Order: sequence, then structure tokens, then C-alpha cells
Amino acid sequence: MPTPVDTLIEARWLLPMAPRRQLLEDHAVAIRAGRIVGLAPMAEAQARWQASDVVRLPRHALLPGLVNAHTHVAMNLFRGMADDLPLMDWLQGHIWPAEQRWVDPDFVRAGTRLACAEMIRGGTTCFNDMYFFPAETAETAVAMGLRASIGHVIIDFPTRYAQNAEEYLAKAEALQLRFSDMARVHGMLAPHAPYTVGDATLERVMALAARFDLPIHMHIHETAAEVAQSVEQHGLRPLARLERLGFLSPRLLAVHMTQLDDAEIALCAARGVKVAHCPQSNLKLASGLAPVHRLLQAGVTVALGTDGAASNNDLDLLNELQTAALLAKAVAGAATALPAWDALEMATLNGARALGLEREIGSLEPGKAADCIAVDLDHPATQPLYSVASQLAYAAGRDQVSDVWVAGRRLLAGGAFTQLGWPALRAEAEQWRQRIDQNR
Amino acid sequence: MPTPVDTLIEARWLLPMAPRRQLLEDHAVAIRAGRIVGLAPMAEAQARWQASDVVRLPRHALLPGLVNAHTHVAMNLFRGMADDLPLMDWLQGHIWPAEQRWVDPDFVRAGTRLACAEMIRGGTTCFNDMYFFPAETAETAVAMGLRASIGHVIIDFPTRYAQNAEEYLAKAEALQLRFSDMARVHGMLAPHAPYTVGDATLERVMALAARFDLPIHMHIHETAAEVAQSVEQHGLRPLARLERLGFLSPRLLAVHMTQLDDAEIALCAARGVKVAHCPQSNLKLASGLAPVHRLLQAGVTVALGTDGAASNNDLDLLNELQTAALLAKAVAGAATALPAWDALEMATLNGARALGLEREIGSLEPGKAADCIAVDLDHPATQPLYSVASQLAYAAGRDQVSDVWVAGRRLLAGGAFTQLGWPALRAEAEQWRQRIDQNR
Repeated sequence: MPTPVDTLIEARWLLPMAPRRQLLEDHAVAIRAGRIVGLAPMAEAQARWQASDVVRLPRHALLPGLVNAHTHVAMNLFRGMADDLPLMDWLQGHIWPAEQRWVDPDFVRAGTRLACAEMIRGGTTCFNDMYFFPAETAETAVAMGLRASIGHVIIDFPTRYAQNAEEYLAKAEALQLRFSDMARVHGMLAPHAPYTVGDATLERVMALAARFDLPIHMHIHETAAEVAQSVEQHGLRPLARLERLGFLSPRLLAVHMTQLDDAEIALCAARGVKVAHCPQSNLKLASGLAPVHRLLQAGVTVALGTDGAASNNDLDLLNELQTAALLAKAVAGAATALPAWDALEMATLNGARALGLEREIGSLEPGKAADCIAVDLDHPATQPLYSVASQLAYAAGRDQVSDVWVAGRRLLAGGAFTQLGWPALRAEAEQWRQRIDQNR
Repeated sequence: MPTPVDTLIEARWLLPMAPRRQLLEDHAVAIRAGRIVGLAPMAEAQARWQASDVVRLPRHALLPGLVNAHTHVAMNLFRGMADDLPLMDWLQGHIWPAEQRWVDPDFVRAGTRLACAEMIRGGTTCFNDMYFFPAETAETAVAMGLRASIGHVIIDFPTRYAQNAEEYLAKAEALQLRFSDMARVHGMLAPHAPYTVGDATLERVMALAARFDLPIHMHIHETAAEVAQSVEQHGLRPLARLERLGFLSPRLLAVHMTQLDDAEIALCAARGVKVAHCPQSNLKLASGLAPVHRLLQAGVTVALGTDGAASNNDLDLLNELQTAALLAKAVAGAATALPAWDALEMATLNGARALGLEREIGSLEPGKAADCIAVDLDHPATQPLYSVASQLAYAAGRDQVSDVWVAGRRLLAGGAFTQLGWPALRAEAEQWRQRIDQNR
């Protein structure tokens, strides 16, 4: 007697991502109550499981949902507002004043909605955010069906969200207690950066992380100027200062990391620090080139992030994966660096590891959450098909993402949103743009 | 009385690209007999012209068709066949043997068909090719409706196409005479590279170029190894050797150019040499980073190419434009380098200039050929809309290309091919893959 399941997804190609580099042909994934029950060859699957919903993907690759390890999703409402400017002019002349004027709970909800639509359309099932009003980001992401890792932002100066470290930390603690009741929401502590958070606050962040057993999400070594400023102010590079504080540990997800010498790479590997690599943001803001190949060679877990849409300018993780795979080769001076399979792993399982969620997501394995996406390879850009991994890493576009499931719930079907109403979201974003543009 | 025209395209935004950085709102383009008759505000256009076909693009940007300044389109049939390998292993162990075994007129026709489908889908209306059996490439491109600049390949060693320089040159001459009778086909001479073509042959290429008044398309300074080998063999870097031969001139389109010192940049500017920048190929093969910002600052015309799909792995010029815009900033160390408008110019008008076709294509101006594309900005990745140029350069995807016209003929309408049958092309490409895979 076949076992009843909710959904059976039959795919031409299946990339479970664990075991590594495994390509299965004509396999099916069975899903029940939001979790993966098992994987099996098509015929066997049809005998083993009786599904109320059978989805046939005859020209598609099925893989784990993409994990965007570094976002500021609400900033989608600032996308394209100020481009091609020097970093400090961009931040001080445009982004910070706009944030001070506009960022409130309504803004964050609207920006998150827009971002969730973009992420669903592009195959991202989980994102790791750092921004003001994280409760609103979390609630909106859940309402939109996504999974989210939400950073409790902590910064040593006043914003519209909080007045001082005390208040940021208090909000973090209160909100984390609420998160435990929310499905698909995971908390992180998010001290903004070494140059905006002092030692005393960092000590309290560590204590809170230990108490709640939370990972920590922080911008580190984004630019050479950041490193130089730290040397001037503290007599130490930021990583050395964090090491002295005991801050470097497997809890830490260090974002950007474009400025690293060999000793720092070895130190990160020894401490189990994880890295969120944001190649397009680093290029666009001329921040530097992260030594991805050397980090991977040293055994560091490297995940992938888009950064906010004000700096990238999109949340297209498939495209980010392609940029990462291409750029790593040039930076390493070796065409063999970051091959297609490793780039795919960076965008899936390494993303899960970076958020401390590798037991829940990141691969298609029995027991894990049914977060998966299908990519339709029947496109002029991905034919002929010698290598599925190559086509996904180097040629497929976000438009080829046809189906998206999060915890077994289908959010995109054949390229169309199943739940959200795009015209209303577009209108909402356009209203915000008009308000912002009229007041510049 | 309104003047009769064939087509009136009414677009929410119009980027004619000449004059520079001009964004028109709610304008229309009138087309008659394959050429642009005029541009005007919507109401005025409706009064001036009576069109048999009116196309309304209420959420779209209309711009000149993209020009891909460096391709090997038939290599689409090798896409993904061998990735993530060291350059020489890739060439000598995979690409060259595959070419020797498989590349014949049938292969070139099938590969070109597949590539044309991909280019039409992605908004490329003109490409500049270098490959064996150029007559077949030209005929196929014309049959598919595209415009093509076709390089007469010349190389100092035997291939299936010709046995020696004598024969390559004779074929070039004979074929160029045929090209003058073919609409939308333009010839170029295409000596492969300094390391594969000797001085004597280069002298004959120059004579032939002068006789037919043809531009010249050549790979130059692609890798540091190429430069080092030339120094060893000739005592000169390739550009210095070409300068000694009198080869550097406004006729020359130099492809790749990742290895350039300041004096070489100044020399190229002084000689009027044009550059085809192929950022994704240069990254993927770890060839180097072209100094695009410095080239532009020196006044060199820089166009954009994808290279062949075996090295990139796609012919997505919109994505290539984004990579170019991002990468130039990191290479220059300045977030202001290669702003959005300049990147768009690189992919359109500079492409036309690079092929010597700037009087025919590259901008939307009265008298030019009606080669234009529409990009639908109603997508989660390109909302809200502060800046059309930013959205096109940094966030739009090829899937947003909705309509394509070449010489006034509509090849893509609302994202669907109007002429070509994709399933047959896919099947043809798959048949080639099977033959090639079974014989590896």
C-alpha cells in the first residue's frame, strides 16, 4: 500500500546538494506536512507514495531553495534612487538621509513585500536580513510565505528604531522571545559593523548570543577604508580587534570580507567564522574583491548574499551565484576556482550553514523542510544540455525559475505567483517612490 | 494629412542613445520600409503618422537593439561541454578536438540557429562573429532575421575550413563579394590572434582590408601568457608588433585587451583602435581584467561582447552589460566608473561604432535602420522606478526583453518568437549534443 503524502514532485533532474555533486535523473521528491519524506526514482516513487498533488517537471532541474545570506530587504524601495556615486556621497548624501526621513514600520512592510515578490520570482526561499524594524520584516516575510533569518540590528547611534545600545539590545531580546512562536522565522543578532559598534556593546551582544544561542550577523572588512580607520582608531584591524574581544567564533557570519591577508583567513578558519560573500555589491561600490577561493581552500564556509537592492541593485541570487563563480576565477587567477557545483552549494547548503539552519534547509534530504525550486532548462540559453550544473551556474536566468516551494507550500507555479497580487505590490512601491521623489 | 508609415511604436520611455543620456517619456517611433522615420511625443506622433501597425508599450523602455561585438555563435552547440578547466586543457583537450571533429557547414548552421534564438530572446539585434564557415553563419543569421557582421576568419594553420593562409584569404575575398548582395550582412576580416597569424599574413590582411574598405576583428592581449610568449618569440608585446606592422588603425577592433599598460592605452587612443570588452569570458577563463575605465578616459571606443557560449556560457548581452558596469568600478577602484548610461551606450552605439556601422544602427535616429528593443519594466526586480537607466543597467533581466525589431521586422512580440519555431531548434541542438556526447 502506498503511503499518503501531500505532494510528489517528479523532476527530470534532481540536485539534492547532499551528497555533494550528485545529479539524479528522473527522480521524485515526496513531501508531507511541509517536510521531505523521501527521494526515489520515478517508478519507485509512484509505487511508494500516493500524493494528493503530483507536479511533473519534465524539462526541469529541482534543487534546494536559494538562501540569500545578506540582505536589507526593505531597501528595495530605494532601488536605483542614487547610483554611480562615491561611497560616502551615496551613504551620507542619499541613503542615510532617506532612511532617517522615511524608514518606519510601514516603509519596512512595503519594502519587504516588494522584496519577497522579487525573491519568490527568482527562487530564493530564505533570506538573512539586517535592518530597522525587524519585527515588521519578520511578520511580512511569514505572511508572504518565505522563510527568514532576521537580524536584531544593534548600532551605537540613534536612529528612528532606537536611541542607544541599551534600547537596541532590549528590543532584540523582546523580539527574540516573540520569534520562538513564529514559524519559519529564525533570529540572529546583527551588530551593524566594527566601526559603528563599540567594544562595550559587542561584549553585551556576545552575552545575549550565548544566552539565546543565536548566531551573529555583521558587516566586516567591507572596504580598505574601514580597515585603515580601525588601525588609526584602535591600533588594530577590525578582525584583530574582534579576536581580542573573543568575538570570532562559529556563531559569527562575517559579511563582505574583501580585505583579508593570509593570517586573517587562517584565523577565520580556526575560529569557525563563516563568510557571506556579496560580489555584486562589492563590485558596484568598488569595495574590493573577496578572496573566495582562498577562503574555501582554508575550509571556511562561504555563503552568498545580494546585499540590499540600493547597492546591488537586485535580489537575484541566481545571478549573484554566476557573478561569484566567474569572479572567483579571475581573483584566484585560475579557471578551475569555484566550479559550478561549488557555486551552487554556496547558494544553497552553505547559505543554510551560514545561518545555523543546516539541519532544517539547504539540501533535499528526508526530514528537512520542503524548501525547493525548479528551474526550467527548456530555454535558448540553456540548450544543449551537456551539464546541468554548468547550465545552472553559468547560463540560467531567474526567469527560468518556474516553481518555488517553502515548507511544502507552493509560492510560484509555472512562473506565476500563487498567492501574492503583483499589481497591488507594484502600486504600493510606486506610491512610496512618488512620496520620496517629491520630497528630495 | 498624416503620413502613412508601417509601424508606430508608442513607449512609456524612450532611450534614443543619441543625443547622449536622453530619456524621453511617452514618445513614439515611426518606422517605414525598415527605417526610422522620426521620433515624437505621443500626441504629435499620432497626428503626424498613420501606421498600419501600432504597438503600445505602456510600461516599457524602448532602446536601440543590443550589439554583441564579439561572438563565435556556432559554438553554442558546445555550451557547457567542458567547464571549470585550466585554459590550455580546455582548448587543447576539449574545444580544439571537438572543433576538428564536428565543425562543418551543418554544425555551423545549427549552432547559429540556436544562437540567433538566444540573441533574439535577449534583445541582441546585431552580432559580430568570428568562426569557420562564415558563409553559413551569414546565411543563417539573415534567414533568422538578424543583422550580422561576419568575420572572414584567417589563421596560419589548417582547419576543416581551409588549409593555409592563401586559402583563407581567397575564401574571404570570394565571400566578401557575395556579402555585398546580402541585406543586413556586413563583412570584416578576422585574423584570429597575433599568436596564430604571422607577419606575412597580417600584411596581406591589411592590403585586403584597404581594398574592400573593411574593418578588422582580432583577439589581442587576451592573457598575460599571450603577451609573454610574444615577447619571447618576437622580442615585442603583441600590440608593439602590430604597431610596427602598421596594423593599429581605426579599422581595428581589438577583442579582450586585458593586459594593457598606460602607453599601450595611449597608443590605441592615438591610432583610433576600438576595443571589444568581454568581461564574463575574461573572468571565467581567468584571463585578466580589462582597464575599461582607463580606456574610456583615454577616448577609446569600447564595445561589449559575450564571446562564444563555450566560454561565457551565454549570449546574454544585457547581463554582460551589467557585469561590465559592476566590474569596471572594482577595477578602477571608483564607484563612479562606467555609470549606467555609459554601460548602455557600450552595448548599443559603441557596438555600432566598433563594427563601423554607426551610420546604420546603434541609436534611434531618423534615417537609421529600425533595430530596436523593448524592455518591460513591470517586474519585481525593476520596481520602483527612480531611474530607467539604472534599472536597465543594474537590475533588468533578459526575460524582460519583450519585443525586438530588426530593420522594422518584429522578431519577438510580447516575449514570444514571431517567426522561429523553438521546439525544432531545441531538438536539433539536442541531436548534436547526443552525437557529440556519444563520441567523446
